[in-house]
Formats: sequence, structure tokens, C-alpha cells
Amino acid sequence: MTVTGFTRNPPFIDDLARSESGRLLRAELGRRWPETTDQLLTIARYALLPAGKLLRPIMTLHAAEAVGGSPRDVLAAALGTEYLHVATLVHDDIIDADTLRRGRPAVPVAFGIPDAIVAGDHLIFTAFAAIVDGGRAVPPGHVVAALAALAEAGQDLCRGQALEARLVGDLDAGARWYPEMIRLKTGALFRAVCHIGALLGGADPTVAAALARYGEHIGTAFQIRDDLLSYVATPEQTGKPATSDLNNGRPTLPLLLAYAAATDTARVELMAVLHRRGAGPGDVQWVTALLDEVDAVEAARRQLVGHAERARAELAVLAPSASADVLSGIATWMTSETA
Amino acid sequence: MTVTGFTRNPPFIDDLARSESGRLLRAELGRRWPETTDQLLTIARYALLPAGKLLRPIMTLHAAEAVGGSPRDVLAAALGTEYLHVATLVHDDIIDADTLRRGRPAVPVAFGIPDAIVAGDHLIFTAFAAIVDGGRAVPPGHVVAALAALAEAGQDLCRGQALEARLVGDLDAGARWYPEMIRLKTGALFRAVCHIGALLGGADPTVAAALARYGEHIGTAFQIRDDLLSYVATPEQTGKPATSDLNNGRPTLPLLLAYAAATDTARVELMAVLHRRGAGPGDVQWVTALLDEVDAVEAARRQLVGHAERARAELAVLAPSASADVLSGIATWMTSETA
Repeated sequence: MTVTGFTRNPPFIDDLARSESGRLLRAELGRRWPETTDQLLTIARYALLPAGKLLRPIMTLHAAEAVGGSPRDVLAAALGTEYLHVATLVHDDIIDADTLRRGRPAVPVAFGIPDAIVAGDHLIFTAFAAIVDGGRAVPPGHVVAALAALAEAGQDLCRGQALEARLVGDLDAGARWYPEMIRLKTGALFRAVCHIGALLGGADPTVAAALARYGEHIGTAFQIRDDLLSYVATPEQTGKPATSDLNNGRPTLPLLLAYAAATDTARVELMAVLHRRGAGPGDVQWVTALLDEVDAVEAARRQLVGHAERARAELAVLAPSASADVLSGIATWMTSETA
Repeated sequence: MTVTGFTRNPPFIDDLARSESGRLLRAELGRRWPETTDQLLTIARYALLPAGKLLRPIMTLHAAEAVGGSPRDVLAAALGTEYLHVATLVHDDIIDADTLRRGRPAVPVAFGIPDAIVAGDHLIFTAFAAIVDGGRAVPPGHVVAALAALAEAGQDLCRGQALEARLVGDLDAGARWYPEMIRLKTGALFRAVCHIGALLGGADPTVAAALARYGEHIGTAFQIRDDLLSYVATPEQTGKPATSDLNNGRPTLPLLLAYAAATDTARVELMAVLHRRGAGPGDVQWVTALLDEVDAVEAARRQLVGHAERARAELAVLAPSASADVLSGIATWMTSETA
């Protein structure tokens, strides 16, 4: 089986979105973000609904349940992780001048940049309020730790974005900083997602820390998977134009590995494509052929598998449960391929 | 004495900035934000230093001390309120396309809009981390309440900005929504500033709530004072062009009161000036004359005095102390005029 068949949402994640957790979250989202004439809440509703796969809040619920907590008690906090995620998407779409998100006009296109900035800020603050709201069943010390985890993840996310911006078009620096960049940019929020679930589910610090490390590896794997998708999936599957990463000069892992393995001539050409910031179909084809030639996608995939395995190993602290199985299943899904 | 002599920083606030609290905060800011090659921290340093009057964190320290806490214990949290304030200024300068801030190029001008968005987000997250950091001397329940207060203030701030954006150029709606708009836009953060200081200083909920109300009235008074300054102070004193509010079509209180009291002809002309978005010296003169004619500045000043008096009344819950005197002095200062 080849990676060509990689799709964004193979059955496991679709099933998860349709599971009891997914239904709970979707109902709560709809209840909390009704139609309104308020401009700020209208933008939030547009950004949040219809909901995506809700992978992050689903993981918060299962992390809580896996340590003996009740998913219903942490519902508000789980949605908080989604608010933070969506807030960063809203601000990212301004920064990257991306016009499409989930196949619809991105928030800055639909509502303008000023309102998109304020709506993103508002969602960030609402994320913190949601953690407070979702922490009523545990001692306040756990809630403080959960809020600290969210704040740290937010800081890391910003550092990851800033680092990525400095690496754009610079494949030498990209190869050096890529692991740290994706750990910050994507790993950190998944770390917080699981850490918060464990803390608000009542876990002791050791177990909560193990679930935090699980989350960071899952997030890192998720970003590598996303990097791979840019080269092997269609725009319909990813929801963004195939040339988006190339046009942004984004140093994705397959590109960095191809660069490292390529001839001097190919390196010069690859840098030229990235600097052009307007890749045509010919460029995309040429890059795809280069990736094949040096087996860069397979090499990237090996790194993905490594993170998924380290994530799964952290779950050894958990007693067997349906939620522990789901968390383990997410690690397995990260490396899955479908026809 | 006329309001013409109104200046941004009459002696009391200058003295406060030079006081022990001000020195403590300035030293801590410098220590926490050293020169660095990190782009994100460099932008934060540029936005935070040289520090302004630090009125908000100084109030956090005095609120803590007034309820029996130690200013040193809450130093980190006090700076957190400054981070949130500065974050909103960074994002505001993008939204309003203001190019100057404290007499220097604004952050978006100096570093570009994308980095300004991310640096503002980073400061927001750092504000929450700072409250956690500054809450080590009190029970975690107080820290959760302080974090909740910061999150609520942030949400209110965004709602206030969104409301203001909808009122731009609409003097009818402005007159209706102005009190709520400034309560959200400026009152809310001052409320949190004092609430957080009281909570982390160890105050019981009743006293903390009274200080929160004190802060909201102070913030509201502060915004009215700022509205007044736009018409009676020079650009050197306010640090922004005299035409800034007119050009942005901002519905400031003197304008709204002038509109309410003006003839139909003057109302039409006033709306025309606001809609022009490029007020010249002639427009500014005409608006100033209209304000004088209907005594709008004095009417706005009466509202300011009302909020300052209600703020001072909330301080009755405090035992006498030097910090209680400072908080009372701030209320007095709000209404002060200097030659």
C-alpha cells in the first residue's frame, strides 16, 4: 500500500467524531454558540460551526475518562481547547493570507481583518474562561495547573509560528529547527489538550505528566502527517489548494528531507521554487517527483511512526479502559493509510 | 481653572510612577524582558519598554497591599495585567492603522502586521502565565478566581472594541451605547487589575468584589478623561495626532454630548466630519468650537467626577493604610486639572 491513498479522515477518526464523545461535544457547541445578532459571537459561531472532527476536545474527554473522571464534567474545558485551536486558525488565516478554510471563505475574508483579530482574541479569552468553567468537579489546584498548561501551550504555539516564519524559504535553517518548530506549533496544544483532560479528570501529577507527553508526541505526529498530506492528497481532501505550502515557502518535513538528500542542482531548483511564492502545476509535479526519487515521504513517515510509538508507550500508566483504547487507537490512526 | 490645562500625567501619577511600587515593577520588567535575539521577545520588549506610567500594575500592587498582602508576592501577577493591556494596544494599532504609539513607530509599523498579531497573542498567554506565577502565596482557589477575572476582562475588552467599531460614525447609536462600550473597553481591565490584586493579596470575596467595582469605575473615569484629552491636549501630551479620534470616526463622549445638544445643522456637519475620515485643522477647530458652545467638555467632566466618586465610595471596605490612600488618590487624580 502506498501513501498515495493517505486521506485526512480515515474511518477511525470519522467514527470517533460520530461517537458518544463527538455527539456530546457537538450538542454542547451548538447550545453554547446559538445564532445571534452580536457580531463577535457571530464570527465565533462561523469559525466554530459546523464543527470539524473535534479531535482535540475528544482527546480531552478521553484523557479525563481514562483517569477516572467524568466526560460530562470536563465538557466545557474540552471545548476550551477547541476555542484556542480555532482562534489560532483565525489569526493564521490573516498571517498567511489564506482565503479558504474548510472549503469556505476564511474568517478574515468573510468578516474583514480587524474583526478577525478581535474575534480571535475573544476566543482565546473564552478558552481560559472555559477551563475555569470545566474545573468545578476537582480541587482548585488542578484547575490552576490546567490553566497554566493552556497558557504555556499558547505561548509555545506563538513561538512555533514565529520560528516557522523565520524558516520560510530557508531550507538549511529548516532542517535544523524543524523538530522544535513542530513541537511548539502543533505538539504543544495536543500536550495541553491531554494534560488538561487528565488534571480535570482528577489524575495525580505523574499520570497527568505522562498523558501530557503522550499528547505532545501525538501532536508532533499529527503535524508530520499534515505535512505529508500536502504532497499526497487532493485539495478536496485537505480543504486547501495543493500549492498552499509551496506558495507560502513552508519548510515541511518531506521538503526538508528531500533537500537534505538531493543533488546540488536539485537543491538550487527547490529553493527557487520556494522563493517564487507562486508555484504552478509544473512546480508541484517537479517537487513531487523529487520527493519520490529520494524517498522523502517514506523517510518522513518513519519519523511519524516513531512519535506514534512513543505516544503509545506513555499510555502504560493507565488502567485498561475504553478511553485508554481510544487514546491508543489515535496513535495507531496517525500512521494509518487507506485506499 | 479650565480643562484646557488638562495634561496626561499631572504630578500625582508621575510621583506614583517614581514611587517604590513603580521602581519595583520597572526593575522586574527589565529583568524579565532582557535584550534577546528572539524575534517574539524582541517585539514584546519593544512594546513593553521603556515602560509607561504602569498605572494598572501599580494599582494591582496597592490593591494587594491594601488588603494585607505583600506587593513583592504579587509582582508577577501585576505585570500580567500590563502584558494584557499592551497586547491589546499592539492589536489595536493594527485595527486602527495607527502608526505612532508613545511617540515611536507602533509595533505593526516597526515589525509588520503578521509578527504584531503573533506577538500580541503571545503577550496575552504570558499574562495568564504571570497570574499563575504571582499566585504562589495564596490558596489555589484565589488564583482560579484571579485567572477567571482576567479571562472575563479580556472577553469584555473584545466586546467593547467590537461595539466601538459598530458605533464609529453613528452618533445616534453612540449616545445609546457609550456607557456600556467604555465599561467593557476600559472599565473591565481596571476592574480585573484591582480584583486580581485583592484576590492574590488574600482578600475575602466581599472585599475583593468591592475593589473590583472600584476598579471598574476608575477605568470608566479614565476613558472619559482620555476622551477629553483628545480635544484639550496637544499631540505632544497625548502621544498621538490630534485628529486621530476624528479620523477614526470614534464616538467620544464630548462629541456625543455635543451632538445631543447641537442644532440640526451642526449635527449634520458633525456627522460629515466624522464620515470624512481625514479631518483637517479646520475641522478640528470647528469641532472644538462646537464643544465649547454647548459646554460638552464640562458635561463630560461631570460624568467623570461621578465615576470617580463612586470609585472612592467602594474603598470604605478597607482599613486605613498607605495603599488605601493611594487608591483614593487615584480617584482624586482622575478629576484633577493642572496648569
